[in-house]
Amino acid sequence: MNYPKNIEKAIESLSVLPGVGKKSAERYALALLSLNQNQLQQFVDDIAGLQNVHICQKCGNYSDGDLCPICKEHGRNSEVICVVSSSKDLIAIENARIFDGLYHVLNGVLSTSKGVFPEDIGLDKLFKRIKEENIKEIILATPLTLDGEMTALYIDKKLTGSDVLVTRIARGLPMGGQIDYADQTTLQQAFSGRKKVNNE
Amino acid sequence: MNYPKNIEKAIESLSVLPGVGKKSAERYALALLSLNQNQLQQFVDDIAGLQNVHICQKCGNYSDGDLCPICKEHGRNSEVICVVSSSKDLIAIENARIFDGLYHVLNGVLSTSKGVFPEDIGLDKLFKRIKEENIKEIILATPLTLDGEMTALYIDKKLTGSDVLVTRIARGLPMGGQIDYADQTTLQQAFSGRKKVNNE
Repeated sequence: MNYPKNIEKAIESLSVLPGVGKKSAERYALALLSLNQNQLQQFVDDIAGLQNVHICQKCGNYSDGDLCPICKEHGRNSEVICVVSSSKDLIAIENARIFDGLYHVLNGVLSTSKGVFPEDIGLDKLFKRIKEENIKEIILATPLTLDGEMTALYIDKKLTGSDVLVTRIARGLPMGGQIDYADQTTLQQAFSGRKKVNNE
Repeated sequence: MNYPKNIEKAIESLSVLPGVGKKSAERYALALLSLNQNQLQQFVDDIAGLQNVHICQKCGNYSDGDLCPICKEHGRNSEVICVVSSSKDLIAIENARIFDGLYHVLNGVLSTSKGVFPEDIGLDKLFKRIKEENIKEIILATPLTLDGEMTALYIDKKLTGSDVLVTRIARGLPMGGQIDYADQTTLQQAFSGRKKVNNE
């Protein structure tokens, strides 16, 4: 005995969401069923609206139009580009209000094991931008994972000899981080990157 | 800084799913964005398909048409009705292959605190069915929670004096249940409901 066909199909589709198994998908489908007709239609419309999401032609960020709000914003420092691996990372940095330059959103990171190459993640566009715009600094904010580090290294190497300053976000223990829980690499980086107290 | 409007709306809608907060909804929305156009359309169509789910006019189970597959199935014991509080419970019982009678699916359980009354959960339909059909036994399989017990008690009381045998599913320790983890009520019910070994 299974659910009616329409419910089965919804459960199957909901299972494509990350971390959602059969049981959760079933729970979600039944919750959606308990919505009234208008609420369910609203849900469907909102998901369908994702089809209208654009990619900013300049920086690769998600956008409602051709250019994202950040590329359109006046008064940002257009001489610095922060390179991130996803729009999600961009939003985290924006919400921290620590950076007023521009971004370049890669479509993930390089991965030899998964066969992801520079042009797959939009690195060609980044280098083209650096050539065409008046960029002074590139801040590499790709993830501190193996592939993220490799991507940062690749960009740095490609820009060797150019006038652009290439920097990488700092490594160390995060706020609230506990020494005994930190991994060896982090501890090593926290020690080698130590600074004199009261002297930033 | 927020996501583009279309993404924000999808995140908001996905947050209505049970147990899904802002962070998970964001993760789901970005995962849906990474689907290709056809896959996303399929997802939207499957969710929209929930609008075509019917409620079986006889038993209240979810159904693709007017009658659910169980009510349409020949050869089931039509003299016994198992009362459950949701289609999900019905499916769990069906999958266990332990029952070949009919069902009556309530729309939840009675709750004085939430103001849920007999007609809200379709109990009037159950009593009408019992009157019109040739029912010999009603098995109460509402949840073993306070409200589920109250609902069972209510049905039992309503049928006092009728010819229908009213039974409640057994209470005790579940398979794999550990004595030291069981709550007092369960232990008390397991003891008071004890049976002679080798004598079902």
